[in-house]
Amino acid sequence: MNAPERSPDHPPLSDTFIAAMSARFGSRFSQSEAVRLSHGTDESAHPPQPPDAVVFVESTEEVAAVATLCHAHRVPMIAYGAGTSLEGHLLAVNGGISIDLSAMNRVLAVRAGDLDATVEAGVTRKQLNTALRDTGLFFPIDPGADASLGGMTATRASGTNAVRYGTMRENVMALTVVLADGRIIKTGSRARKSAAGYDLTRLFVGSEGTLGIVTEITLRLYPIPEAISSAVCAFPDIAAAVNTVIQTIQLGVPIARIELLDALALQAINSYSNTTLREAPTLFFEFHGSPAGVDEQARTVQEIAREHGGLDFEWATRAEDRSRLWQARHDAYFACIRLRPGSRGQSTDACVPISRLADCIAETLEDRATSGLIAPLVGHVGDGNFHLIAVLDPDNAAELEQAHNFAARLAQRAIRMEGSCTGEHGVGIGKRGYLIAEHGEGAIDVMRSLKQALDPLNLMNPGKILP
Amino acid sequence: MNAPERSPDHPPLSDTFIAAMSARFGSRFSQSEAVRLSHGTDESAHPPQPPDAVVFVESTEEVAAVATLCHAHRVPMIAYGAGTSLEGHLLAVNGGISIDLSAMNRVLAVRAGDLDATVEAGVTRKQLNTALRDTGLFFPIDPGADASLGGMTATRASGTNAVRYGTMRENVMALTVVLADGRIIKTGSRARKSAAGYDLTRLFVGSEGTLGIVTEITLRLYPIPEAISSAVCAFPDIAAAVNTVIQTIQLGVPIARIELLDALALQAINSYSNTTLREAPTLFFEFHGSPAGVDEQARTVQEIAREHGGLDFEWATRAEDRSRLWQARHDAYFACIRLRPGSRGQSTDACVPISRLADCIAETLEDRATSGLIAPLVGHVGDGNFHLIAVLDPDNAAELEQAHNFAARLAQRAIRMEGSCTGEHGVGIGKRGYLIAEHGEGAIDVMRSLKQALDPLNLMNPGKILP
Repeated sequence: MNAPERSPDHPPLSDTFIAAMSARFGSRFSQSEAVRLSHGTDESAHPPQPPDAVVFVESTEEVAAVATLCHAHRVPMIAYGAGTSLEGHLLAVNGGISIDLSAMNRVLAVRAGDLDATVEAGVTRKQLNTALRDTGLFFPIDPGADASLGGMTATRASGTNAVRYGTMRENVMALTVVLADGRIIKTGSRARKSAAGYDLTRLFVGSEGTLGIVTEITLRLYPIPEAISSAVCAFPDIAAAVNTVIQTIQLGVPIARIELLDALALQAINSYSNTTLREAPTLFFEFHGSPAGVDEQARTVQEIAREHGGLDFEWATRAEDRSRLWQARHDAYFACIRLRPGSRGQSTDACVPISRLADCIAETLEDRATSGLIAPLVGHVGDGNFHLIAVLDPDNAAELEQAHNFAARLAQRAIRMEGSCTGEHGVGIGKRGYLIAEHGEGAIDVMRSLKQALDPLNLMNPGKILP
Repeated sequence: MNAPERSPDHPPLSDTFIAAMSARFGSRFSQSEAVRLSHGTDESAHPPQPPDAVVFVESTEEVAAVATLCHAHRVPMIAYGAGTSLEGHLLAVNGGISIDLSAMNRVLAVRAGDLDATVEAGVTRKQLNTALRDTGLFFPIDPGADASLGGMTATRASGTNAVRYGTMRENVMALTVVLADGRIIKTGSRARKSAAGYDLTRLFVGSEGTLGIVTEITLRLYPIPEAISSAVCAFPDIAAAVNTVIQTIQLGVPIARIELLDALALQAINSYSNTTLREAPTLFFEFHGSPAGVDEQARTVQEIAREHGGLDFEWATRAEDRSRLWQARHDAYFACIRLRPGSRGQSTDACVPISRLADCIAETLEDRATSGLIAPLVGHVGDGNFHLIAVLDPDNAAELEQAHNFAARLAQRAIRMEGSCTGEHGVGIGKRGYLIAEHGEGAIDVMRSLKQALDPLNLMNPGKILP
């Protein structure tokens, strides 16, 4: 047990516990330093905090067995999917066991007639869409990273398609969950709607592994649209682009994606993805529907863009052109980090009512200019959600502090505008400080009561969400 | 205190409590028998159970004051909105106070630019839509009755438009809630999405007043579609109509309403509403969108209907014709009850995956034929949700028992088909017996833990939901 990063205030794993886990899981229970380090690291700028050990599980029953043992021995449990979280969700701040669900990667059922599928938690969104290839259906939620569907459920993820298809909140129908003491429960059903009791499904969606570990998920699927069309349009300034978004949403155009990137983000993308997009504030659009419907939506949006000084519309209707365009958008996070060799990214995640979007972005860009941070802007602006990706020197304490303060001001600004400090990344350890401002003491007390009711020993991903 | 209906196992209100309530609320605190009886009666066939008293509140702070007093004196609290619940939700099975929120009927804010509004819990859905008249927006959830939005939130209501716009689950953004001990909390925000902690909003939506009393609600609004078109189409048999629905949904047609009625329901409607619709299995359709989009949807659905032997399409494009058509649909419940003078209605509420809809309806109609019950079928079949309205002689015990058994078999059938015993009416006292079959003991234990965490004295609408 060589773990210098582990904080000293929690006891090491007991020999009895280690023996029991080894007996049950053999080589799938690992205390190796490399395995522990990789399971204590996510995609965020938060410094790694490895767990005391990692167990690679293959079934719900195995997760239940681990939970039962951890419960008996008072060992914290942290679910691990693809490791793509952005707020330190999987960091072992109190030590404990990382439960790696990546081998639980079976698509259990695809019911094309009902437009739903059931998967194990380790299935990634791309894997699911590959499995759906011959059904004419797709799963729309797309946070960029090829995250596991368990992790996406746990963080209430969304991404570029949410403006049309909703987030994980709207698209999870049912769950299998392992509770802190090893009990296995099912929530929800395959009915499209139900008024049968408390909405346990929605309680676990977004609970970040602090109330239970999601092991199976039933998801809504959608018919692949008959026609899909994508476009980019550059604007003279950010305000013109944002006002185009606002008017599109207020008119109720059923747009599938509407993404904003600023000039700096375009510069990063061109350099990383070898594209030649104009380096100006830009909207990426996608339209889904029948051929006539897509044409109609596109005409409407093009007209709105023109009224706001949109410079040109470049269309991508062929599947490969669309893929290239959206791949470039998805690579924006990594492209931004590459702007500065050796840097780490730190992404903000404000979400505000659409009427406040222009104000919130304008104030934030003024703040960015004052701070001198390198922080390209990208965002799912149809939902009022946008990110600034601060590109930071991890060894420069002053810069890290400045970025932290910038992020704090943005979170508070979003909350002041009746929005949220996190639209889709989740709370993890990074956003805990803003929850009281966002929800009030009373609601946080209720959250604490729920946590106490379901996990009285505080073993499920302790130190996350609750302030 | 003349209350012969009150079960003898709970104590009468104490003089101290009565004095305190009278001092605070004056004539708005009533122990009159008529007022108590009206507040212990809903639209269902469950026999009335009056509360011990009724208080007419005018603000969140007054609800909190009532809750604080009730908490101190261990008096049960039951929220009352419009009294249109269908499963005995507001029956005072343990006595206590009915808190009438109907005077909390202010539309607090309409933010057209953000497509949202905040209302007090006593505002009804029709009142909200009247208030929205000049904004170009509407609130789509439509359970038929002019229910209060607080009650619709509490029961996770939906109705004819849910196939396109979702249920209260998807359309409530934020709440003000009074907890059992009088604390006031806010849940959610005006952000379209958020990953900031546990989804308290969804926990209270559908909790039927058993975890807290909803006093204010922020709701999503939608632009009134540019074009709306309605139609009816009769079919040679139920199976043909249901298969038309299934194929429409599986093709992803964004239909706004698709309602099934059987020949008996049509007969009831013609007699009640003075219409001359063909008395055969019939689908009512509504299409929302641009003029071209509506045309395209209508053509697609018409073609599907024709393939399944649809007999004719009668269109209603003028607003007054559409209103007459949907008013007739909404009046179906009362029309059915009128089939038999002096009768009471008892509505089932099964919801199944769409692929099982034809089977579930066929088995249910066989069961109806065997039982000899008069029970027209109506349903929001786009969601897999349908109702049989048993028209019962309230003095015929054998018939009531037969109807109860028929409803029980249908609930169990829906659960066996991976559906729900209640799509939209809620559990109340009527569906408690099916919850373990639907969710399993484990999930019900979790629901009990949540109830215990938020209402340890079991004062919030006791005797509802949990088996």
